[in-house]
Parts: sequence; structure tokens; C-alpha cells
Amino acid sequence: MSLEEKLHEIARLIRYYCLISTTSAGSGHPTSSLSAADLMTALLFGGVFKFDVDNPSHHNNDRLIFSKGHASPLFYAQWAAAGVLQEKELMNMRKFGCRLEGHPTKAFNFVEAATGSLGQGLSMGVGIAMNAKYVDKLPYNTYVLLGDSEMAEGSQWEAIQIAAHYKLDNLTGILDVNRLGQRGETMYGHDLSVYEDRLSSFGWETIVIDGHSMHEIHSAIEKTVHVKNKPVMIIARTFKGKGVSLIEDKDGWHGKPVGKDDLKNAIAELGEVDKGIIAEIAKPEDVRADTRNAEEIKAPSYDPGVSVATRKAYGNALKRIYPGYPDMVVLDAEVSNSTYAEIFKNEYPDRFFEMYIAEQNMAGTALGFSIRGKIPFVSTFAAFLTRAYDQIRMGQYSDANIKYCGSHAGVSIGEDGASQMGLEDIAMFRAILDSVVLYPSDAISTERLVEEMAGHKGISYIRTTRGATPILYDNQEEFHIGGSKVLRSSEDDSITVIGAGITLHEALKAYDELKKENVAVRVIDLYSIKPIDLNTLQEAAHATKAFITVEDHFSEGGIGEAVRSAITEMHIPVHSLAVRKMPRSGKPAELLDYEDISSKAIISKVRSLL
Amino acid sequence: MSLEEKLHEIARLIRYYCLISTTSAGSGHPTSSLSAADLMTALLFGGVFKFDVDNPSHHNNDRLIFSKGHASPLFYAQWAAAGVLQEKELMNMRKFGCRLEGHPTKAFNFVEAATGSLGQGLSMGVGIAMNAKYVDKLPYNTYVLLGDSEMAEGSQWEAIQIAAHYKLDNLTGILDVNRLGQRGETMYGHDLSVYEDRLSSFGWETIVIDGHSMHEIHSAIEKTVHVKNKPVMIIARTFKGKGVSLIEDKDGWHGKPVGKDDLKNAIAELGEVDKGIIAEIAKPEDVRADTRNAEEIKAPSYDPGVSVATRKAYGNALKRIYPGYPDMVVLDAEVSNSTYAEIFKNEYPDRFFEMYIAEQNMAGTALGFSIRGKIPFVSTFAAFLTRAYDQIRMGQYSDANIKYCGSHAGVSIGEDGASQMGLEDIAMFRAILDSVVLYPSDAISTERLVEEMAGHKGISYIRTTRGATPILYDNQEEFHIGGSKVLRSSEDDSITVIGAGITLHEALKAYDELKKENVAVRVIDLYSIKPIDLNTLQEAAHATKAFITVEDHFSEGGIGEAVRSAITEMHIPVHSLAVRKMPRSGKPAELLDYEDISSKAIISKVRSLL
Repeated sequence: MSLEEKLHEIARLIRYYCLISTTSAGSGHPTSSLSAADLMTALLFGGVFKFDVDNPSHHNNDRLIFSKGHASPLFYAQWAAAGVLQEKELMNMRKFGCRLEGHPTKAFNFVEAATGSLGQGLSMGVGIAMNAKYVDKLPYNTYVLLGDSEMAEGSQWEAIQIAAHYKLDNLTGILDVNRLGQRGETMYGHDLSVYEDRLSSFGWETIVIDGHSMHEIHSAIEKTVHVKNKPVMIIARTFKGKGVSLIEDKDGWHGKPVGKDDLKNAIAELGEVDKGIIAEIAKPEDVRADTRNAEEIKAPSYDPGVSVATRKAYGNALKRIYPGYPDMVVLDAEVSNSTYAEIFKNEYPDRFFEMYIAEQNMAGTALGFSIRGKIPFVSTFAAFLTRAYDQIRMGQYSDANIKYCGSHAGVSIGEDGASQMGLEDIAMFRAILDSVVLYPSDAISTERLVEEMAGHKGISYIRTTRGATPILYDNQEEFHIGGSKVLRSSEDDSITVIGAGITLHEALKAYDELKKENVAVRVIDLYSIKPIDLNTLQEAAHATKAFITVEDHFSEGGIGEAVRSAITEMHIPVHSLAVRKMPRSGKPAELLDYEDISSKAIISKVRSLL
Repeated sequence: MSLEEKLHEIARLIRYYCLISTTSAGSGHPTSSLSAADLMTALLFGGVFKFDVDNPSHHNNDRLIFSKGHASPLFYAQWAAAGVLQEKELMNMRKFGCRLEGHPTKAFNFVEAATGSLGQGLSMGVGIAMNAKYVDKLPYNTYVLLGDSEMAEGSQWEAIQIAAHYKLDNLTGILDVNRLGQRGETMYGHDLSVYEDRLSSFGWETIVIDGHSMHEIHSAIEKTVHVKNKPVMIIARTFKGKGVSLIEDKDGWHGKPVGKDDLKNAIAELGEVDKGIIAEIAKPEDVRADTRNAEEIKAPSYDPGVSVATRKAYGNALKRIYPGYPDMVVLDAEVSNSTYAEIFKNEYPDRFFEMYIAEQNMAGTALGFSIRGKIPFVSTFAAFLTRAYDQIRMGQYSDANIKYCGSHAGVSIGEDGASQMGLEDIAMFRAILDSVVLYPSDAISTERLVEEMAGHKGISYIRTTRGATPILYDNQEEFHIGGSKVLRSSEDDSITVIGAGITLHEALKAYDELKKENVAVRVIDLYSIKPIDLNTLQEAAHATKAFITVEDHFSEGGIGEAVRSAITEMHIPVHSLAVRKMPRSGKPAELLDYEDISSKAIISKVRSLL
């Protein structure tokens, strides 16, 4: 049997699996799977793709991401053909408890990353390919299966431009142009020249093929290996539902399985299926990346009397801790001189990646690095991380290990005005499953918390402040995820004031003023907003009669609500001072006053509660 | 004086204003302003741009958006040259209380929309141009000033593709390629061919010019008028800081004003400035759009016994209320057969705009429609609205009047799995200033709330459910923003259960079960999560000893926290049942059970509190 004949046989089996699994589930996307069945068959089983099926985490495996995650039946079917899954398990696809979920997730260990929100897979591929080319220096290739509908997402073009910029000749996109979107035709139908022209103009090599010709597909994949200094897109003309006349190239069949009554005919149309066929994937070369051992990290060293912006301490910390975390990479969206990621860049340029003003792709690329075992730190203005919320969200379904830093938090940035102020970032990051949200107030706690983030596995976020703030802590002080610090307390405390970041300094000012009036308040530095230090809050709730939270953030989803949720069963009111008026330009102190989150507002609130 | 000479004179005055205002402010972006000063001068004062300075809200004014919002000094300077602002006010730029903020905001009424988060202006321009071409059918043109750095944002390419798709020949982009970004050179520096090739491949007409030649700029702008069926991009080679040798084309000068000591020399270099020059803008033709009077809206009419998905009721409502809101337009991101916006589309195809899978541009386009007085309804899956969070966020600074609908809320969507589940949308929309967040449980309340949204001015959000739910209310029942319904209550109520959407039905099931055990619970339909019905909550807090909130949403920022924040001063515990485990695929009922937000979990929680 020739290779082409064999590929046809395998594709037939894969189509069979796609049909039976979706009909069994009663939902799912067989048509979007069938259009790409030949593409994936020729890729996986044609000899170019290298993957050790007995060791899916092999360092030098080629990588495959289904950016069109709804083609999950195909994904599962191909691994079934490769002998990794049994037909019985396919028949449980989409059922509760089965690892074969509706869209690919990490529950199935051959999935590199969860997909299903379109237009994200290429960014992940960029991260994996950048890791191979620039960090691990391994010869593996990364392949991303893309749908034509999702090419409308801007994130695709962010990934496309960055892939070309970084000359990722180890990255191949396979664009399944099946003409039909969810509710009808795409913008360009089967006009492949549109994709060809655009991708060429963005610096990619393009190869246009008939996506159902095994010969053309195989030949295109072989060609990609020889392209140097740029990524390649294989642009394939395909038909949705290919191979089953009931559904082939028919509108109205997106996300619909063939009915039980029609299944027999559909399968018959495929021709005889050989379930015993051995579909083999070529093995990768057994090479590994050079790794460097972790070295001891020095303690931070700030003079106690100085003021340092926490954003600057973030940059200092990245540089300081890198020897202890040799898997670190740092990404920034063209503002490294504002986030101070540039301090790291200047010291370790090989581990810094300029991602330009394209936050979505930055987050997706970070996920790619994370998938390959790196520890990505990702920074931009807190406000602009909202741009990547969908990518951040999807990270939680991919076991992402990503450390986000949002600088320029809150109205305290001053003159630049509302558009630049991060005022919803805490809410955004809190609403990520098992996330960590940190908001330090001085350089030393920032340094220590950046270190904690590096050692923590998961999605964490640190919020930094534009302006310089006084050092509050000793260089040896310890800070932990889930911790807090009681900075002022006495047996006479009447009220507890809880701040973090810039507002903690306002709370301390308020403390000093109130002390003159013989009013004692407890002041807590809630540097870990999630997880939150329940014990310290409970103690304060027992000791004082009210809480005042004060935050440079909108009132919803921030510190006030985090505190309320933590102590909901305790009978203590939580008064929240937060940003509630339309933010504007002005001096930082003016804006803190205007929003009633300055020491004045705290003092006034305390007095009203005495 | 020839037109060109006059334009040079005006540009000199504008440069002068850019310099003095930023030096006075001590911050701001003079260099990014000077690169575009000639472009904007020739545009505004060259005779092609039509704008009635005495009536900035004139229906047929040409529209100008500064997508590169940090060039606000130029924006203010040009209007000062046009006689709209005085030098004295320019000297207060960026100061607290001055309407000339750090980035353009609606505080200054010549600003169409707030900008400052890059890559958003073109989408707004698309909305304004679509309004002119397809809705108002007015001959005005829309111009968008773009920076080269922001071309890295994917949102730009979403806007670019849609503008070409809708053949927006009334839209002109002016790309200020000044080579330098914030922290160094852009990806392409002064290689204008990159932009030219890409824009051409996306279907735009391109005109490449020297952005400091008044002749070339003016001639390019005149040419744009004659281009038919496609948008035009003027790609201008410029120099950051042009005209002042201290800063011209120099790295390290982003966002930095000329120091006070250097200002005199910088001004002297401009040559003699004529402050008395009369810079006139041509007047627009006095035409108006045909408007249609609002007609009475019929009441919804559902049979009491049926089950209808709230997402379907959303579609029904759009169609039903349109006669009463003739300014409505409906946008959807290629899922109108899932959100049911297609019900409107099928009835009123001229007012429906397919925005394909490009949520960022959809939100920006909606803002454009909103700016021109339309009432845009915008729908996609709730999960995918996260893609547009930055655009949604920026809307709050532009007095946006946009109605968002997120379908497929929560784990109750079932088999499709986590990537498709909106689980952070309530948190996201609550953290928008003065937003409205609605979450109806049946078709009738959905219909009524969609109607309320249409009449409300601001940013509102409605969350809809995938599966069919039983009708709970009478067709004549009234629902209000800020309201709620007490569905079950008695004098013996021990505990209050608060639900919305799918979980309200679980609460009702729990009520029935508990009643059999002679346990009376109060059940509240909290259909308006923001604003929240404080009175009803307070009454329930007085009447019962604990609250149980139950929501198909992550525990942070959702219903539980909204309720806690509302009644923080009352001594009643609020127990939150919410999504806290990694969501997965399965049947809706299985997933509600798994996440402990089903009637079983409610019953168990109630029993534990008795």
C-alpha cells in the first residue's frame, strides 16, 4: 500500500470516529472535523510530524494545537487512530466524567492547551515555537490547525505579525478554509487568494492546496520543512462535512451531529473502514534542552528611607530572582520602560521578548511558553490587560503557569487620565479560578511577592503603582501568597482600616492624624487580595467594630468585596471607599481626594463611625 | 497667501500650542503631536473637511477621531487654531478640573469618543461611517488619525477587514508613521511598504505620502473623496517631534514635554507664530437624516405553560420593540443563530450588521453607532464578550449608550464545556461605572428587560441562558432596572434564597421540596444585579436569618458579592453558592449538581442553617 493509499485508509477510519462519537454524544461538530480530516491525517501520519505517542511530554515532540477547538471530534479521532484512545471512550465524548470534553481541555493529556475561544491557538503556537527557537533551542516544529471563520479575529493577525517578526520557521499554520461559518458563509468563502495575499503581506510563506488531496497536503507539509526564516501557512480549500453527502458543504450543519437514523448511510458512504489499521507517527529525535541549575537568590536591598515605585521594584525583582528561576521568560507590550520590565531586559536580553502593542497575542504566547515549562512574566499597564481577558480566561482551562503584572493601577497615575487607569483589574483577575491577586505597597513587599509568584504554579497577578512610595518593610521581611501585615494595632483599636498599594499609605497617614485625636485604628496591608488572610481579618473583626476598606479601584469586585466575602458570617459592617466617580486628569493627590480614597476620606469615615 | 502657505502658518501656530501646553502641564506627548501636526492641519483647514464649529453636533459634520489619543495636545491645539479654545485654557491642560484631559475625553465636547487605549479609534470610525452609509444615509465623511505603533493591535485589523467588507468609502484613515514607539522603534520603522501591502491586501485604497508636505497631504485628502466602494488609508512618513531639533526623530522622547528652559529655543525654531491667523473649517451641507417616529410597542405574548430559552426571548424582544425604538441597530459576532439576534435580522435586515468573529471591533463599532445617536444592541456568547473588555471599558469614558447581550451563561450550557461558558461576565460588567447588569429567568422578564435597556441611556448588559426555562410571569408583569421579584414568601420564612437566571428555577424547586418538610424559604428573583433592589433585600434581611445566593457564575464579582455589598451594614450572613470547581462537559443538570448550585445544593445549605 502506498503512503497515499494508507493515508486514505486512516482518514476513512478517522472520519468514522468523528461521525460515531458525535452521534453518540448527540452534539458536537462533525462537519468542522471532516473538513480537516485529510489535513490532519496527512500531517500526523505522513512521516514529517514527529511525536512519541508513548511519551506525550517528550521535550522534542512536534506540537499540534487545534485553534479551531470545536473540531475536537477530529482531535480525539486522530489519537484513536494512533492507538492512544479506544472506540469505547470516543463513544463517551462530551459525557460527564469523560476526559474527552466538548472542546479540547487538559483533561486529555494529548491536548497542549484548551481551545474553543477562537483565534487563540496561533498565539499559543507562537509561544511554543519561540520557546523552541530562542530558549530551549530544540528542533521540534509546531503546527496549528486554524479555521477560516476565526481569521476574522484580530488576535490572529497579532500572532501572524509577531511570528514573522521573530522569523519562526518552526511554526506552520494549516488553514482549513471550508467556506462556512456558524451561521452562514465567511466573509471570503472559498476565495483563497484573500488569505494568501494577506499572509504574504504579513511576511509568511504561503502554500495553497486542495485540502482533500493527500498528495498535495503531504507535499505541502514536506515543503514547510525547507522554508527558512519565516513561518508557513498551508491554505487548504476544503469542504465542511467532506465525505458525507448529507452534510457536505451544506449550510445549517454547523455544530450538529448526524442523526442516529442517518448514521448508517453516512458511514456506508465512507467505504469500508479498517479498524485494525496501524496508524504510526514518526518518532522524534531524542534531544533535550540544556538546562541551567537554579542558583541562590539574594535578598532585596533598599535603604529604609527611600521612596521607590512598586513598578520599579517589579523590574528589579525580575532581574534579582532570575538566577533562582532559570526557566523565567519576560514579555512586555511595548511599555517596558513604564512597567520597568526593561530592567530585566537590559540584564538578560535573551530571555526578554518584546511583544509590541498586542496584548492578546502576548497572553497567548505566554501560555505557549507555559505549556513548554517556562515561567512567563507578562507586563503592561493594568488597564490594557483587559485587552487580553479572553486569553487570560482561557489560560485557567490550560493549567497555565503565567505571572501577570499590571502597572499604573488606579487614579493615582494622575494626569494621563481615565483611559490609562487600571480600575477593574482586581475584579477581572479575582474572577479566574484559583487565581492569585497581589497588590504590594512598597518596593520590598513587591520584590518578595514577585519571588512568591515565580515559585507558585498557576495564574497570578501583581498590581503595581506608578508613583514612588516609601519603604515600609525591612529587607528581610517575609511575604506570602495569602498573607497580610498588621501595620498598626493596639488594644484600643476601634476600627480596622484595610488598604493595599497606594491606599495603604493613605491609611497610615490617617492613622497618624487620628492618633493625635486619641483615636486608635488598626491598619492592615492586604497585599494578598486572593487568597485572602482570613485569620487576620477575623481577629480584626473581633477586636474592632467596623472595617473600612480603601482601594484605588472601582467598588465592584475589588478589595471591599473580597473582604466582605471572606468574613460574611461575622457581624461586622465593611465600609468600602473606592473609585465611584468618573475618573479624570489631575495630580495624584487631587484625584485620591476627589474619589474619596485619600487619608481625608478615611479620617472622615472613621469619625463618622465612632 | 496661497492655501499651502496658509496651512504652513496654521501648522506653526498648532505646533506652538502643542509645545506650550505640554510644557505648562509638565507631562503629555508633544512629540507624537508634532509628527501629525501637518496632517491634521491640512485635513481640517484644507477645505475638504466640513465641520460647523458653532455646532459640533451638526448631523452632517465630518467626524474626526484621534485613535492615537496621546496626541491630545495636537487635538486641542487644532481646535484652538480654529478659534474654539483659548490659549489660556490650553495652559491648563491635564490640570484637575480642566476639560482638556491627558487623553481626549467627552469632557471637551469636540471629542467624539474617549481614546487612549490604542487601536480602538478605527472601530469607532467604522461605526460612524456605517451609520452614515447604511442608516442615516448622510454624506459626511469620517477620518481617523492612527499611530504606527498601534497598528500592532489586532483590533485594527478587525476594523480594517470590516471596513472593506462594508465598502466604507466614507471612511479615511490617516496613518502617522513616525517610526518611534514608546520604548524604541516600531516593528517596521519607516518602511511604509509594509503598511501599504497589508492594507491593500485587506481591500483598502492606499496613498503613500510625505506627511510633512502640505501639498502631498492636501492632494491625498482630495483624492480620497473620489475613491468609491472602499475605504482609504493615507500612509504618511513623518517624524516624531517634527520641527524642533531637540526632539525631532529622537528616541527617548515619547511622552515627555520640552523642559521650561528649552521651550524658548524650541518655539524660536518654529519661526514667527501668527496668533491672529484665522483658521477656517469649511461648513457642511445642511442635511439631516430621515427619521421615523416611534410607534407603540405590543406586549409580549407567551403561553403560560411553555418553556422558552431567555436567549430566544432576547431575539423576540428585539423584533418586538424595534417599532418603538427606530434608532435601534443590532450587531452580532457570527453567532446570531445562537444568540437569536437572527430573529431581528430576519425581520429588519437593514438594521442588522453581521460583525463576524471579531468582538473587539464589534464593541468599537457599536460605540461609533452610539456616538451618532443610535441604540446598538450587541450580542455574542457571554464568554466571548471578555474579548472586548478593553473596548467595553473605554465605552464608559465616552458616554456610551450600548446594550450588550451575552448568551450561553454559565455551566448550564452543558456539553460544550468550559471555553464556551460565561462565568466572569457579571464581574466584568459590574466593574463598569454606572453600568446596568440584568439576568432574567424567563422569557417574559427578558422581553421586558430588553425593552428597559432600549430606553435606558448608558452601558447595560443582559445575560441569557442557553436552555429553555418555564414561563414564570404574566405577560403584563412589569420589570424595572433596579428591581427584583419576591416569588415565594410567608411570615414563617427562615432563610432567603436569591437566584437569577437558571438558578432561580433551582431555588423554586428547592422551595417546593423544603415546603414538604415544612421549611419555608423566601425566594427572590434578583433579575437586576446592578443596580440592586436594596429595599427588598433589606426587608428579607429583617424577616429571615440568613441569605443564600446561588449563581451560575464564579464566586467573585457576581450575585453573592453584589448582595453582600448592598447589605453590608446589616447583620445577616450571606452564603454564596457559585461555580468553584473546574467546569467540565456534561448534561446541564449534572453540571449544576457538580458545582453545587442546583436545588440539591440549595436544600442542603438551607438544612445546614436551620
